[in-house]
Amino acid sequence: MEKIIHIVAGGPSLYIPNLNDYTGDGHIWVGVDYGVYHLIKNGINPDIAFGDFDSVSEHEWKLIREKSGKIMEYIPEKDETDLELALQWAITENPQKIIIFGATGGRADHYFANAFLLIRKEFLHADCQIEILDTQNRITAHLPGTYKVKKVDDLKYISFLPLTSEVEKITLLGFKYPLENKNVKQGSTLCISNELLEDSGTFSFHSGILLMIRSKDI
Amino acid sequence: MEKIIHIVAGGPSLYIPNLNDYTGDGHIWVGVDYGVYHLIKNGINPDIAFGDFDSVSEHEWKLIREKSGKIMEYIPEKDETDLELALQWAITENPQKIIIFGATGGRADHYFANAFLLIRKEFLHADCQIEILDTQNRITAHLPGTYKVKKVDDLKYISFLPLTSEVEKITLLGFKYPLENKNVKQGSTLCISNELLEDSGTFSFHSGILLMIRSKDI
Repeated sequence: MEKIIHIVAGGPSLYIPNLNDYTGDGHIWVGVDYGVYHLIKNGINPDIAFGDFDSVSEHEWKLIREKSGKIMEYIPEKDETDLELALQWAITENPQKIIIFGATGGRADHYFANAFLLIRKEFLHADCQIEILDTQNRITAHLPGTYKVKKVDDLKYISFLPLTSEVEKITLLGFKYPLENKNVKQGSTLCISNELLEDSGTFSFHSGILLMIRSKDI
Repeated sequence: MEKIIHIVAGGPSLYIPNLNDYTGDGHIWVGVDYGVYHLIKNGINPDIAFGDFDSVSEHEWKLIREKSGKIMEYIPEKDETDLELALQWAITENPQKIIIFGATGGRADHYFANAFLLIRKEFLHADCQIEILDTQNRITAHLPGTYKVKKVDDLKYISFLPLTSEVEKITLLGFKYPLENKNVKQGSTLCISNELLEDSGTFSFHSGILLMIRSKDI
């Protein structure tokens, strides 16, 4: 049975897909700060709740205590974000996959910090796939190597963004706009809005870190 | 008279503040793709319209032609994004400031690519302030140096995110959580959600590129 950890952070609920589509055997649900309340509102009892809970009301806090399997409470003035602490815990559980919801939209500092967590050494080198998912996007970070990507009908566009000053020798096969051994600098928009031609393709690169974003227009 | 160029890109209008609050003498309005239509809907005639206009309807396209001072039309399948072309034009006009609206929210590939444009050499070294603004955030990119920041009542939080693998010797003075000569790695959330104690403070650093995001909860 595949072990998947779902982490729901406190971002705007507007961007969070229907979480009940993601429930299943062996799935663990983790709420982070306001995300815990979001889970409960959607009928899912969190296995673990992380946070300082400085953004929840008295009523919400009561519900969180009643419904959560375990609460990991922190003081608000700490160096790590709640999501960071939840992720650190999650990788020690050795899941096959971690999906993060509620990490996009709203405050740009949170959004960017959440995406940049993916490239933190401990998470980038973790032995599981970590992705940030919302109603319109799926974001993953990648180390040098060769990767197969399958078509996802619902997320038509595939974009690659360098998160290091340069990413060397990007090759895209099976894409509408193919590339061969192309060096791409951070800030370049060359690899935005690509699409797969067939059911699958591959991307590979030799150095740097690449963010892959699969997305759709709505 | 201060020359300000306002660029309105095609991001979700949900995040675009009331543009009429930003009109004034010497201000130039630039629309990018669907952003042109957004400008016109809000009663502002664009001085220049950039784009391939592949996302506008027949009716919208008619209005764009009627109301725009000048139209710079491109083929959809080009290497640069429309916003990139508009920014390249804008810096040749030598304004004191460029404000970009409609560049946040929605598709994450567009959002990240737009933010990463700020750190493109030609824009980062441009002799004017370039900022991305939405209803909740103001994003700017900075080269090593010392900067004064003034309190903005409406944007309580000030966050700093490294966009290079490390930013060396960050010093924050006049902040709730001060720092002195601290090296911060990309992916660290150490400089998130800071606040000014008084009416102004300073930040400085010795190497790397820093994104400053001023934001508020809504």
